[in-house]
Amino acid sequence: MTDTNRRWVLANYPEGMPTESDWRLEEAPLRDPRDGQVLIRSLYLSVDPYMRGRISPAKNYAASVELGGVMRGGGVGEVVASKHPDWKPGDIAESMGFGWQEYPVLKGEHLRRIDPSIAPIQSAVSYLGMPGLTAYFALLDLGRPKPGETVLVSAASGAVGQVVGQIAKNMGCRAIAIASSEAKLEWCREIGYDGGINYREAGDLGAAVAEMCPSGVDIYFDNTGGPIHDAAMQNLAMKARIIICGMVSLSDKFDQPDIGLRHNRQLLINRARMEGFLVSDYADRFDDGIRQLAAWHGEGRLKFREDVMEGIESMPTAFLRLLTSENFGKQLVKLGEPSG
Amino acid sequence: MTDTNRRWVLANYPEGMPTESDWRLEEAPLRDPRDGQVLIRSLYLSVDPYMRGRISPAKNYAASVELGGVMRGGGVGEVVASKHPDWKPGDIAESMGFGWQEYPVLKGEHLRRIDPSIAPIQSAVSYLGMPGLTAYFALLDLGRPKPGETVLVSAASGAVGQVVGQIAKNMGCRAIAIASSEAKLEWCREIGYDGGINYREAGDLGAAVAEMCPSGVDIYFDNTGGPIHDAAMQNLAMKARIIICGMVSLSDKFDQPDIGLRHNRQLLINRARMEGFLVSDYADRFDDGIRQLAAWHGEGRLKFREDVMEGIESMPTAFLRLLTSENFGKQLVKLGEPSG
Repeated sequence: MTDTNRRWVLANYPEGMPTESDWRLEEAPLRDPRDGQVLIRSLYLSVDPYMRGRISPAKNYAASVELGGVMRGGGVGEVVASKHPDWKPGDIAESMGFGWQEYPVLKGEHLRRIDPSIAPIQSAVSYLGMPGLTAYFALLDLGRPKPGETVLVSAASGAVGQVVGQIAKNMGCRAIAIASSEAKLEWCREIGYDGGINYREAGDLGAAVAEMCPSGVDIYFDNTGGPIHDAAMQNLAMKARIIICGMVSLSDKFDQPDIGLRHNRQLLINRARMEGFLVSDYADRFDDGIRQLAAWHGEGRLKFREDVMEGIESMPTAFLRLLTSENFGKQLVKLGEPSG
Repeated sequence: MTDTNRRWVLANYPEGMPTESDWRLEEAPLRDPRDGQVLIRSLYLSVDPYMRGRISPAKNYAASVELGGVMRGGGVGEVVASKHPDWKPGDIAESMGFGWQEYPVLKGEHLRRIDPSIAPIQSAVSYLGMPGLTAYFALLDLGRPKPGETVLVSAASGAVGQVVGQIAKNMGCRAIAIASSEAKLEWCREIGYDGGINYREAGDLGAAVAEMCPSGVDIYFDNTGGPIHDAAMQNLAMKARIIICGMVSLSDKFDQPDIGLRHNRQLLINRARMEGFLVSDYADRFDDGIRQLAAWHGEGRLKFREDVMEGIESMPTAFLRLLTSENFGKQLVKLGEPSG
């Protein structure tokens, strides 16, 4: 075992679209866990769109990373050393608190135990973790889908979107995907989406949504914001629900005011509801969600696609792929294998 | 009794802010009611912001008035002649279907019976009618106010806004008014609002809202849209509810795209909910609402201010006063007195 911990720290708050030079790879000495703490070897680190908010100095739903601080993020890994009674070397643990580093030291009570016999361990940061739970609670609790309704999903092949579409189908809805390439749409159809729109090729996006959703959009699951949001808002069905889950299309102008079409009249005409979602609000129901997602997966009713890069060096690249829609499926970075 | 019916017909679809020449006053022969119909003498006609949508050729939640057609609107009046078994001369009736005319002929089953001993008859188009019911169902059903929460109301001295503020107080909330003059704010305080903002004098409206709502806005009751909407959206409390009820500030650009700040990030950060409201969706609960509003009025917990013009000639002027915030209280036009 090494005695250094490589980690990415924030070098700059980017203006507009981030670049790799906004982070710096550092070597730090490995730190022993103190009482109650656990030393972990990262096996998979997750990159997620919410991280764009963490490198903005603007007010957000969580504090920003300080300059020179370790970049925040979730991961799954193996316990190396433990001073917490619940954890021993070899255990597999997941947490949102890993950070972009090889050897996080975390409080034992902040870790979630992962059983590697149920699913590949990286599922704990994908369909059996934050993205899957986001899809599950946002669609079911805010969207309240009814059989026969049309559910439109942006970033539909992404970590959240692919789960949304399949839950929508499991609920008896029509699911329509919006994604950035034919290959992604093809995959969306394979997992159950009834149709799709390639927003880079569609031309008039509003007309494309109208064509795919002839009875209007009952639920719009918004992972992107921007022009895709506008196209959906122009095609709402009566009593539509719009779930504001992400705004990855605004990654290049994160700290600027978002100026554009305002859709209050669409909300009024259609008595529609638009609501912001954050998965951490549902922490006390995560176990229920994971149980249902795992059950669907076991029944073949929830498939999942990953896009895996390798090595701690890849973290900024992997994150930037996400912001520019280059990823195809849940973007992960693999750092190692369990020792067992 | 006269044998002519003076009525306002639509002459043009206005571009931007309507003007009086968009309507034309016509004289038509008085029409006898047919089987099932009732001839009514209008006593009070209502003007309401929703009428801006009726004179737009654009899609809306109800069809537009055709050119040359009688301008639509609600009123309260006295039955003059009846071929419907439930109605006899002298009865007082209310309906959304009067139109801007002296002698509407309406189907008996579309009329609501008004008991003049309970409240002044014009209450049937104000706090015991559409505006009161709008305030009641929108605030209680969409807003779900909890004691101690802050409720911010735009057009707060208007027909809907003055009722919203008083219901908010009856529910144990703090109520903050936004209006266009000190006199209106003074009246708002008299009826129970805890404070107010004069949007024409406030300068930085966002800062003014922040000052009046130091814990953030839990419920924003939006009758205006536009910059007031923006100021509210910049000051949301966690889990805020935004009720989109009207957009009178957009009367001068009704058929243009509304371009401006987009607040999706505020919805996301605060997990806030924004929802469009239309009172007609609650028709099967109107009786309950009217009963409660009348009870509050009887207990002195619901006051109401009217702004009354006289004569059918005044209809366009009265409506335009509403669009430019010149009215002070519920805008009505009085055409006559009950004969009894």
